Amino acid sequence: MSQRPDTPLLDTVATPQDLRQIDRSRLRQLSDELRTEMIDAVGSTGGHLGSGLGVVELTVAIHYVFNTPDDKLIWDVGHQAYPHKILTGRRDRIRTLRQGGGLSGFTKRSESEYDPFGAAHSSTSISAGLGFAVANKLNDRPGKAIAVIGDGAMSAGMAYEAMNNAEQAGNRLIVILNDNDMSIAPPVGGLSAYLARMVSSSEYLGLRSLASRISKKLSRRVHSGLEKAEEYTRGMVTGGTLFEELGFYYVGPIDGHDLDHLIPVLENVRDSEQGPILVHVVTKKGKGYGPAEDSADKYHGVAKFDVITGEQKKSSGGPPNYQNVFGDTLAKLAETDPRICAITAAMPSGTGVDRFAKAHPERAFDVGIAEQHGVTFAAGLAAQGMRPFAAIYSTFLQRAYDQVVHDVAIQNLPVRFAIDRAGLVGADGATHAGSFDVTYLASLPNFVVMAAADEAELVHMTYTAAEYDAGPIAFRYPRGAGVGVPLPETPERLEIGKGRIVREGSKIALLSLGTRLHEALKAADQLEAKGLSTTVADMRFAKPLDTALIEKLMRTHEVVVTIEEAAIGGLGAHVLTFASDEGLTDAGLKVRTMRLPDMFQDHNDPAKQYDEARLNAPHIVETVLKALRHNSAGVAEARA
Amino acid sequence: MSQRPDTPLLDTVATPQDLRQIDRSRLRQLSDELRTEMIDAVGSTGGHLGSGLGVVELTVAIHYVFNTPDDKLIWDVGHQAYPHKILTGRRDRIRTLRQGGGLSGFTKRSESEYDPFGAAHSSTSISAGLGFAVANKLNDRPGKAIAVIGDGAMSAGMAYEAMNNAEQAGNRLIVILNDNDMSIAPPVGGLSAYLARMVSSSEYLGLRSLASRISKKLSRRVHSGLEKAEEYTRGMVTGGTLFEELGFYYVGPIDGHDLDHLIPVLENVRDSEQGPILVHVVTKKGKGYGPAEDSADKYHGVAKFDVITGEQKKSSGGPPNYQNVFGDTLAKLAETDPRICAITAAMPSGTGVDRFAKAHPERAFDVGIAEQHGVTFAAGLAAQGMRPFAAIYSTFLQRAYDQVVHDVAIQNLPVRFAIDRAGLVGADGATHAGSFDVTYLASLPNFVVMAAADEAELVHMTYTAAEYDAGPIAFRYPRGAGVGVPLPETPERLEIGKGRIVREGSKIALLSLGTRLHEALKAADQLEAKGLSTTVADMRFAKPLDTALIEKLMRTHEVVVTIEEAAIGGLGAHVLTFASDEGLTDAGLKVRTMRLPDMFQDHNDPAKQYDEARLNAPHIVETVLKALRHNSAGVAEARA
Repeated sequence: MSQRPDTPLLDTVATPQDLRQIDRSRLRQLSDELRTEMIDAVGSTGGHLGSGLGVVELTVAIHYVFNTPDDKLIWDVGHQAYPHKILTGRRDRIRTLRQGGGLSGFTKRSESEYDPFGAAHSSTSISAGLGFAVANKLNDRPGKAIAVIGDGAMSAGMAYEAMNNAEQAGNRLIVILNDNDMSIAPPVGGLSAYLARMVSSSEYLGLRSLASRISKKLSRRVHSGLEKAEEYTRGMVTGGTLFEELGFYYVGPIDGHDLDHLIPVLENVRDSEQGPILVHVVTKKGKGYGPAEDSADKYHGVAKFDVITGEQKKSSGGPPNYQNVFGDTLAKLAETDPRICAITAAMPSGTGVDRFAKAHPERAFDVGIAEQHGVTFAAGLAAQGMRPFAAIYSTFLQRAYDQVVHDVAIQNLPVRFAIDRAGLVGADGATHAGSFDVTYLASLPNFVVMAAADEAELVHMTYTAAEYDAGPIAFRYPRGAGVGVPLPETPERLEIGKGRIVREGSKIALLSLGTRLHEALKAADQLEAKGLSTTVADMRFAKPLDTALIEKLMRTHEVVVTIEEAAIGGLGAHVLTFASDEGLTDAGLKVRTMRLPDMFQDHNDPAKQYDEARLNAPHIVETVLKALRHNSAGVAEARA
Repeated sequence: MSQRPDTPLLDTVATPQDLRQIDRSRLRQLSDELRTEMIDAVGSTGGHLGSGLGVVELTVAIHYVFNTPDDKLIWDVGHQAYPHKILTGRRDRIRTLRQGGGLSGFTKRSESEYDPFGAAHSSTSISAGLGFAVANKLNDRPGKAIAVIGDGAMSAGMAYEAMNNAEQAGNRLIVILNDNDMSIAPPVGGLSAYLARMVSSSEYLGLRSLASRISKKLSRRVHSGLEKAEEYTRGMVTGGTLFEELGFYYVGPIDGHDLDHLIPVLENVRDSEQGPILVHVVTKKGKGYGPAEDSADKYHGVAKFDVITGEQKKSSGGPPNYQNVFGDTLAKLAETDPRICAITAAMPSGTGVDRFAKAHPERAFDVGIAEQHGVTFAAGLAAQGMRPFAAIYSTFLQRAYDQVVHDVAIQNLPVRFAIDRAGLVGADGATHAGSFDVTYLASLPNFVVMAAADEAELVHMTYTAAEYDAGPIAFRYPRGAGVGVPLPETPERLEIGKGRIVREGSKIALLSLGTRLHEALKAADQLEAKGLSTTVADMRFAKPLDTALIEKLMRTHEVVVTIEEAAIGGLGAHVLTFASDEGLTDAGLKVRTMRLPDMFQDHNDPAKQYDEARLNAPHIVETVLKALRHNSAGVAEARA
């Protein structure tokens, strides 16, 4: 912190307007300073490093050539936008990245007019850019939309849908394909192989021929047979037919670190009468920082690190991460069960599927950023007798919701859903929170929905899911490290739809689903100290509900509180619906539900997020005490 | 019924095994009889006609060449599978199509072993086929997967994701692209234009050259520069580079009505060592039935009709359909508001957007089967100051759930969602029911969720949504005709989050959301006749809840019943959550929730579906009476 890097030129740039005053010959220096500043900042905060380093020159070139913010620059995913943030009035806050109250780790509309469309999930930028472009067209306003999208993000169906619709934008839409041959993990699939062939089969063109080629290319569209033949033959050198067939003018590939190429090409593209245009830019993830360039994942996401050595601050020992407990458990089960498969959507290490893949490479499938396909592929595997586990973060499973409903639930196929990052996720913020899965899964007929209270429970649930062939089954668990309970030697097959009493009491009943169990136990201690005998149940299942247990607890306790790290519509709603329909509350019973609040919570320390959500032990105690004080007439009293 | 067509050859075919015994020279006759039989059957039942007529020869050829059901034939969407059903043991039930207890209008696993993977939503077949193929590969079992997918379905991102992953299947996966240049409406987008260019620029090849070309093509993959040049030059004639770049071997285009071409080509493909293969087959929707061929939509979906004249049985007059009320209202509002746009995903007439488009063509956008893109495109329009209406069926909006959460709700962008086909949908069955939208939207922060009780309410809600710029807003309404109330001259802007008392009473309160209001009113009459004074409220909003109204009714009534045509997690769950958290039920109150049951309801008459769901007036009365009989100790009594 004390020794900030020396950045004399960057210090003169508060906004892109300043940047555009700089002589072109000094942009190299500006880029170098920007890179240094970014490395230093992320060294102190942690965050996404490699992606931002790869687009330093591209960021400078875009802001230099285009008239941001009137031209709308949309970074796909947005985790590569740190250099962009530094150049767009947020440099003074760059060392608050991903900290509570600080800058988001992604683009965000509320943060800056230079972020016209926020992101975090991938592959949305072309659709959004097309919206801006068409709105301008309808209103006869000037202004382009520039979408910068990685090759990994291009594998998602949504990007293809957008490309398929882009022609109407004409020259108002520019897509910059940032091809670094890496999203988080090495890329998969036909598109990636195609891009690699395009790059490997072509030389980067000299500036002069590049400029003339582009101006020729953008001057007219060739359609006749002979011209088409020429175009195809040219395609061999510069590639691009796939994008051209979808209606784009293709330009590239271009060296994304060479400003002398980038700037004239972007100027040509900006001034083109034709469009939409796809510019294929080749960059290196982690560029310009040795430790990142040398690393397998190019420092995609890092902890705080030492800028000189690149060494990341490690968390010391502690319980294993949930994802690894899942991956190891599944790998072990697969040793004796050849039907078990694992599917990940571009998150092999994040989901622990990498550990499974190491042991069973032929049964691990990384489908790329393609959750829709991944889920229906799993359904096909299940229909042919396999036992597929779709391991997908809660927030990303939203991408495959219709496939979950239509291909899995309606057909009652035994696909197993290992739902990682369920609940609050800390520094990644609202876009990555796994808030809704209990609601959107437990409302589906045929589904079984479990939530793990700790890493030992996750072992049992993984096994239970493997052995359950009657239909779809999901189990959710949080981001990060387990709570430190010992892992079972032998996994236990849980009885479907049965919870467990963890602590016996008589007056208060706390019904917990998933992660808040340990807070519920703490709360029970505190209540007991006040003379309030408290039962704690780990419900384990949001669906099917353990109705016998609920009925028993409701008939024998004075206050019943449900607790879950999930939005409205989850355990609480299901318990209340059951109880009211069965008349269990007709004669009066104090029931309260605790859940995630009706808001999108910003990034913050997990502990602070739980406080904000009011899901810690003190909040449970407070809820119980308030309910006890409440009397039938006393709504006002209760609110006071 | 009395005069069935004469089909001597078809009468000998009970299963594909029989079909494969027929001499190849007689397959033309079989196809003709199959077509006649299908026209006659759909004439008596109504249903999807044009699509099935287009694939008669293809259906015969596939079952002739491939070893179904061991080879897995997967029809994308499945509405073109009527000829397939006739040939696979279901001919005796073909005149029960789409009737209660009869055959489904789509493919369905529970119906036949020849339907290995059911469908109804589009673009799932390649993913599912890949699942079968990979499972066979892992188990070293023989058996191919054949996915038949239309050009319209190919525009969905999911199909692209699957193609991007298909290479691993090798020759176990065959994709047949059924290119009829029509899905339901004329096709849109770059892919469609590309396919049209491929077809128009090529002659169908003679049989001999076709066979030699294919065998040469499938014998090896060319990769060197010179060979690639040849490939591109050939591509000019036969096209296919787009699919080839994604890793497929491309064969075509082929005349899909010429069995002399289809069968040898499919045999070649079947016996190929290489793969995956995409066979591009060109067909005519409605082929062989004059009235269908001559119709603009090629008789996509028809009512019962006269086989000779093609005349469809029209429903007589009656109230307008909801979709048209929406389309007309929006078109009228757009006359004075240039910010209003409408987006449909390949359903212009189904959503009423066709009416809007007629008046405002430049502001109507058909994005193709691409709900994900459509929603984020709308978000981009909203971010740039437009007032976009995304008009999407409830069931298809599931495809864009993540975009609703991530691009619209988190960013609080004022996208308007006109949610058609909300609730039960009759003959289309479980796959098309709009059961979950209240649950999955009302759980999202920032969202406003309305439901129209009748077509006049729909007018008000359309206007309310247009005028609401504070964030996302959705309004749902059912399939089919309105209830017959007069349409308002001037739309009213509803107060956000406020319901209305439709009938005043004192003992029973019925809280209705959306369509069941008129049943609630009927129930109130019946209850009143029993001396039970009944209030009926049209809540209008699932979110934000009218908490003041709920509190007032709960404090003044003895029994409160919520009623909605939606799954668990909707109005009932929100009312219960509010009431319990506020302590309104602490001292005892009989609350009951009525909603869609926890099952996927099969296709049937709408009236019978409502009976099955127990959402008609008698069920409301029964629920109230049962609640009144219930006492605090009497769970058993209540259940009896």
